[in-house]
Amino acid sequence: MNMRKEVCIDSNIEGNMQKKACLGIDIGGTSVKLGLFDLEGALLEKWSIPTNRERNGAEIIQDIAASVNRKLYERKLKPERLTGIGAGVPGQVSEDGMVLLAENLGWQNVPLGRELSEQTGLPVRTENDANLAAFGEAWKGSARDCHSMMFVTLGTGIGCGIVVKNQILTGVYGTAGEIGHMHVEDRMPVPCVCGKYGCLEQLASATGLRWMGERALEQTMEPSLLRNEKVSAKTVFEAAGKEDRVAVQIAERFGKYLGKALADCTCLLNPEMIVIGGGVTKGGQIVLDYIEKYYRQYAYEPFGGTKLRLASLGNDAGIYGAARLIMMDKTDTF
Amino acid sequence: MNMRKEVCIDSNIEGNMQKKACLGIDIGGTSVKLGLFDLEGALLEKWSIPTNRERNGAEIIQDIAASVNRKLYERKLKPERLTGIGAGVPGQVSEDGMVLLAENLGWQNVPLGRELSEQTGLPVRTENDANLAAFGEAWKGSARDCHSMMFVTLGTGIGCGIVVKNQILTGVYGTAGEIGHMHVEDRMPVPCVCGKYGCLEQLASATGLRWMGERALEQTMEPSLLRNEKVSAKTVFEAAGKEDRVAVQIAERFGKYLGKALADCTCLLNPEMIVIGGGVTKGGQIVLDYIEKYYRQYAYEPFGGTKLRLASLGNDAGIYGAARLIMMDKTDTF
Repeated sequence: MNMRKEVCIDSNIEGNMQKKACLGIDIGGTSVKLGLFDLEGALLEKWSIPTNRERNGAEIIQDIAASVNRKLYERKLKPERLTGIGAGVPGQVSEDGMVLLAENLGWQNVPLGRELSEQTGLPVRTENDANLAAFGEAWKGSARDCHSMMFVTLGTGIGCGIVVKNQILTGVYGTAGEIGHMHVEDRMPVPCVCGKYGCLEQLASATGLRWMGERALEQTMEPSLLRNEKVSAKTVFEAAGKEDRVAVQIAERFGKYLGKALADCTCLLNPEMIVIGGGVTKGGQIVLDYIEKYYRQYAYEPFGGTKLRLASLGNDAGIYGAARLIMMDKTDTF
Repeated sequence: MNMRKEVCIDSNIEGNMQKKACLGIDIGGTSVKLGLFDLEGALLEKWSIPTNRERNGAEIIQDIAASVNRKLYERKLKPERLTGIGAGVPGQVSEDGMVLLAENLGWQNVPLGRELSEQTGLPVRTENDANLAAFGEAWKGSARDCHSMMFVTLGTGIGCGIVVKNQILTGVYGTAGEIGHMHVEDRMPVPCVCGKYGCLEQLASATGLRWMGERALEQTMEPSLLRNEKVSAKTVFEAAGKEDRVAVQIAERFGKYLGKALADCTCLLNPEMIVIGGGVTKGGQIVLDYIEKYYRQYAYEPFGGTKLRLASLGNDAGIYGAARLIMMDKTDTF
């Protein structure tokens, strides 16, 4: 923890004090991550609290408020010295801070912005968590100083946030960046959670890699390192790194689905950079290499190529993006 | 021609006069379209001049300037009363008005903005023509008042401009919206102009419809209305409207390629509306119906559907968008 002394402000100073810090919060289904930032964007301290999903997450907001208030008290930091709270939610949020739907929290029509503001005395701005993770990577991560970027998260599913000229692209109903539901396979025998067949996240997420792996092992008698252990994104890329033929085939398929889908995204958006993160990328550079191989084959880039990079902020991308959100004057979503 | 009298300003009025009008210009490979607009966006007069492509289009700018200056003289309209000129170019333009490449005009590194401004005494802003056509449809056409929109032009090729919250999305190298080069067919035997195989515009443009039609007639003995006439977008949709089986198959394929590609675009952008225009849509509602059939099958729209509409400004979309561009204070591209 990098605690800067200048943020521990004398609590006796009164009046219209200069702002010194802000909070970035990332509300997840298991835990809520919180970060205290100075206004240059340095992370002063981060901590987390468990997400209490009981009774449709009825306690979550007051748990967050209590944790924030305790931290400010510990640090002798008056609310007046904070710009406010930025908060990311795993779901759909309206511009006025109303969470329309966040299934992982059990929330439907929860006035997060208003309640968190009332319980902390701080201004609150809210946004979808994938968008804020992108905002974080665009601000302080791999896509720093980029004109435009997509941040693709390969986890259980596939999420994506888009930032163009420091603005989050949300779409008219907040579903911009839902590339996990691009259609990539006509012959998919099982349905996606969305009800359609052949969505990108059925094949190129951690879940998809496991599904492809288990299926490949069933369909061939070929020996494979994957027969000795649980098939997962991790074991597939480890085995592919050792030239295991079955694993290489799965990794190639993964790379083709994702590389081609991202090439199509480049046709539409022409971003300066595509940042790839999430659990699947714990496999490291080899994951990116399989994606980039097919991306370059399909991408239309007559005047210059989009850079593909691994994410650099890890699990902190969301709190960085949330802090950035509350620091900005205007509404930087469009 | 709808000439409003109030624009014919007394040429004796001097000094810092209130702005009254502006010009929108759409530079094409065959003709240059010009429009005089009032500042509410009403088109007061439109006209066109031929594009002189000789000597790499060396005369084009002075031809435009002469036509503009003549029109202002005729209308007794002093340059000081005009906001300026917005100009669309079929190619890549930098923010400072330099046309980097416009093959149809023979232009490479032509300082359009500077020269046209010098020769008319008016401020000039430039932009890619597909982007300005989108800007026009978003402003005064089918997507009026929409949060966000794509304007897809189905002509010899496939172009697309994107407008989100009154801003043109250009991409880092100006190639945002190049959906004509999305990969849609793995088994395409001939290369696209871009060098790749299986691009959307090889199959779902006017050129693509003709190619699919001619190929279908070769591959089947089935009788078809298309055997009696030249195969084109027009004849394909006319015959499909009469339930001609060969034509229906071609139209279905067209609809599937384009509908699926646009569904993928919706995953990424979540636009409020997709407007479809260009020569192919002269076939009318039936063209849109074939696209929408497959679009709805593939689109992921959990919170509300993107509207699909035919364009309404026809060939004037470009001059409307160009006028809008010069009317706006800030740089509304990103």
